[in-house]
Amino acid sequence: MERREKIPKATITRLSLYYRHLELLEFDGYRTVASEKLAWLCQVNPAQVRKDLGYFGEFGIRGVGYDVRELQREIKKILAVNREWRMGIAGIGNLGTALLKNQNFKARGFRFVAAFDTDPEKIGNQLSSGLVIRDIRDLKELVKQYRIDIGVISTPYSGAQETANMFFDAKVAAILNFSPAQLQAPDHCIIENIDFTVKLDILTYKLKNEIAI
Amino acid sequence: MERREKIPKATITRLSLYYRHLELLEFDGYRTVASEKLAWLCQVNPAQVRKDLGYFGEFGIRGVGYDVRELQREIKKILAVNREWRMGIAGIGNLGTALLKNQNFKARGFRFVAAFDTDPEKIGNQLSSGLVIRDIRDLKELVKQYRIDIGVISTPYSGAQETANMFFDAKVAAILNFSPAQLQAPDHCIIENIDFTVKLDILTYKLKNEIAI
Repeated sequence: MERREKIPKATITRLSLYYRHLELLEFDGYRTVASEKLAWLCQVNPAQVRKDLGYFGEFGIRGVGYDVRELQREIKKILAVNREWRMGIAGIGNLGTALLKNQNFKARGFRFVAAFDTDPEKIGNQLSSGLVIRDIRDLKELVKQYRIDIGVISTPYSGAQETANMFFDAKVAAILNFSPAQLQAPDHCIIENIDFTVKLDILTYKLKNEIAI
Repeated sequence: MERREKIPKATITRLSLYYRHLELLEFDGYRTVASEKLAWLCQVNPAQVRKDLGYFGEFGIRGVGYDVRELQREIKKILAVNREWRMGIAGIGNLGTALLKNQNFKARGFRFVAAFDTDPEKIGNQLSSGLVIRDIRDLKELVKQYRIDIGVISTPYSGAQETANMFFDAKVAAILNFSPAQLQAPDHCIIENIDFTVKLDILTYKLKNEIAI
């Protein structure tokens, strides 16, 4: 595959957002959309939409805009979500249960194929999805057996690094980390962190600086 | 208050990260830290640390680095987390329950003071935190009574905009949105979205483009 220039992470985040709005537009019966309208829906400026898409090719038709379905297909290819990704989740407390029930993952091709915990009371229990909670000590073996691409960590802070190490050892390609721990990772594994309190810090910063309260 | 130059959102996100590592350094007994070390811990480059902090003043001492406690205090002031923020949460399913149990919010001064749902089976139930689930129809009144600053939405997609409208009507200053809905907001309210699937799109993009698999 050809090596592209370095794309800003913010562009990737926005592509994901454009994709969501294109889905809604298709649902509403639109076949084309002007970049101005797409921009307005996504609350970014039109030049930004054109710039973000411009990294990857020429998608629009002058005077018409974008083909709603075609652009969805292209963005799916860019984001590599035009396939199924298999996920294993460790830590089946309230958060883990909420994630397993979240319909969005499945709708977007992210499929939970295994669930792990350390608690003997939980191991062996069947979840509403049909998955049976497995002993985390079998993680490495099951990652291979179920061909898990992505490890999801929803353990408390204290167990997070140890769980991550198990995923690293099992050679998963990526980890989505919901714990507040900053994980130390080897080079072969990509990590994305979801720290709710970082978002709150951004909110409060904005409240202080951009709105008079 | 003096109007500062526009600060990149990425800087604010990193300040939040620096703060977390400064806490850990203090816990480990460090009184000062070189920008190189702080940068290494946070996995950013040292020039970035200096640039981010440089937006807000002169904090380091040449040849010594940063005072660990002093810098925490400064960042707390910058992020406006040197006070308590009062939150109300709507949608007490698995995700809502997980958020209410999350100890990090409280540790950082974000306190849940009210919980709302629409389900008659849930309304009136007491949560482990002591909060009693309230009828969402009383939201406006209770936002005022409990002086709620921030609304947290953990409803399914379908109820999210309606819930947001209630928070807007009650004049909360900010909303943290965990639902996948893109909310339309009035000017007086700031919204931060936490969409788990966006993070997965970033992961898969990286898997495709930066690592050969």
